[in-house]
Amino acid sequence: MTKIASGAWAASLTPLNADLSIDVEAYLTHVRGLLDRGCAGVAALGTTGEANSFSLAERLALIEALGEARLAPDRIMVGVGCCAAPDTIALARAALAAGYRNLLMLPPFYYKDVSEEGLFRAYAGVIEAVNDPRLRVLIYDFPQMTGVNISLALLARLAGAFPGIVVGVKDSSGQWEAMEAALQQLPGFNVFAGSEQFLLPTLRAGGPGCISATANVTHAALADLVAHWRGADADARQDAVTRTRLMLQGYPAIPALKEIMAHASGRAGWRRLRPPLVNLTAEDAAALIDKARAAGVLEALRAA
Amino acid sequence: MTKIASGAWAASLTPLNADLSIDVEAYLTHVRGLLDRGCAGVAALGTTGEANSFSLAERLALIEALGEARLAPDRIMVGVGCCAAPDTIALARAALAAGYRNLLMLPPFYYKDVSEEGLFRAYAGVIEAVNDPRLRVLIYDFPQMTGVNISLALLARLAGAFPGIVVGVKDSSGQWEAMEAALQQLPGFNVFAGSEQFLLPTLRAGGPGCISATANVTHAALADLVAHWRGADADARQDAVTRTRLMLQGYPAIPALKEIMAHASGRAGWRRLRPPLVNLTAEDAAALIDKARAAGVLEALRAA
Repeated sequence: MTKIASGAWAASLTPLNADLSIDVEAYLTHVRGLLDRGCAGVAALGTTGEANSFSLAERLALIEALGEARLAPDRIMVGVGCCAAPDTIALARAALAAGYRNLLMLPPFYYKDVSEEGLFRAYAGVIEAVNDPRLRVLIYDFPQMTGVNISLALLARLAGAFPGIVVGVKDSSGQWEAMEAALQQLPGFNVFAGSEQFLLPTLRAGGPGCISATANVTHAALADLVAHWRGADADARQDAVTRTRLMLQGYPAIPALKEIMAHASGRAGWRRLRPPLVNLTAEDAAALIDKARAAGVLEALRAA
Repeated sequence: MTKIASGAWAASLTPLNADLSIDVEAYLTHVRGLLDRGCAGVAALGTTGEANSFSLAERLALIEALGEARLAPDRIMVGVGCCAAPDTIALARAALAAGYRNLLMLPPFYYKDVSEEGLFRAYAGVIEAVNDPRLRVLIYDFPQMTGVNISLALLARLAGAFPGIVVGVKDSSGQWEAMEAALQQLPGFNVFAGSEQFLLPTLRAGGPGCISATANVTHAALADLVAHWRGADADARQDAVTRTRLMLQGYPAIPALKEIMAHASGRAGWRRLRPPLVNLTAEDAAALIDKARAAGVLEALRAA
């Protein structure tokens, strides 16, 4: 089976200019920093990257810039899943043309209560239209955002119908039982946990690791856990990583992570978000920064 | 306040070619038919029209075709709400350029648990970017699909901030209490029920009427109710309309309505859907057609 680079991947944030366009230079600097500082890889244009708040043209331009940056192809994943199949197909082709073959693909997410057959056809239609043997699809399962359920049966059917093409899943459901079932029943399938809370269990179950939003600011601690996951103190390291993650919970993830980036970097522009996302209140921001400082997150970011 | 044409609007289905592109000619024929046969107006490119399954380019082309068809501007509403603000802005501008100013606008619907402030800024950002006094926005509230809650407070704030621009809502929540509250507390605001189940109550409460998916196949009965809504037998007519609507429930709406269209027209192509939507099973289709026949829907469609 096709093996995707294992470890802790970061679902990259996307820095914005004052007019809320993508700050491409700052973006590439951030992505290179994540790759240099211990992330196994970077998932671009995912939920954390506000991908669905950008037009197709904006996403295509960012993919082209990623291509020109010539980053390590095996350490980049590009989010391409849209509501409309033609958009998903266009983004997939652009990512392949830019040199990146690992594609993270949301299901079409407008309609709800859709059938497994319908989702299979949606994915199959895109894969057949792209029709490129380089293609590697990781199914992006995030039911809290999409309202769409990706079953184990659907993953098995897609992996069976498109061997070497549908090679994995990012499971952001937060349900360890579902991840464990996929790890056990789909050997060789790259089951990434959508949170570092499940990093050690995933590695122990033979999985490649996690793709995490928090990794934008906690890459050092995650890299440390990955380096020592077979060691005697691995559980203690996982506990520390989980504590940090849970401390950041209760805040909307993207505004919270951008707040920490702004604070650690001294660059206020990191706070910019596209609506409907909004910044934390001053009170919440202050409390969050205190927690991040207490967890050593700010210190680790500044040392990087 | 700005008044939108009252009565029963149809949320138009979108017929597809064999390659699942939009059959523009069949589409215009269908829309003209709905307008000719008693619908107060037609909402194009809504949920029923599979709008979110089409790329921006496909939607722009359809809007241009609607413009060239020179339909009565006050009887057309164009769905323009996307996840990404630049797409919503582009569609809104295109609709205005095509001669249609009544725009039905979903909130950005990828992110969940978003704040009222964030939704306000999302709508305000689009309206300010379009910056055209012809613009009339109807907020499209369909929480079952979007997972996004549109509160009465948000509607009031938008109507207050953009008088004559934000002029109404299509409430597809199915919650009569919410519609009634909007009708009572926002006088002059065009509160359309998203289902003909609430057509008579909406008219009696001073509202303009409904925008309904079912109206694609039940326009005759709905036009009849609208024509007689002040009459002694209005409640009986509403009951009949509701019975027909509920008979079609339990089936996925778009596949069911396309099945009826195919059956009534003899044009099998009407069954085509973009994944993740799929056709009814043969068994479900047969049962549905029996119910539609019993309700007089097929007969009314063929007589039209």
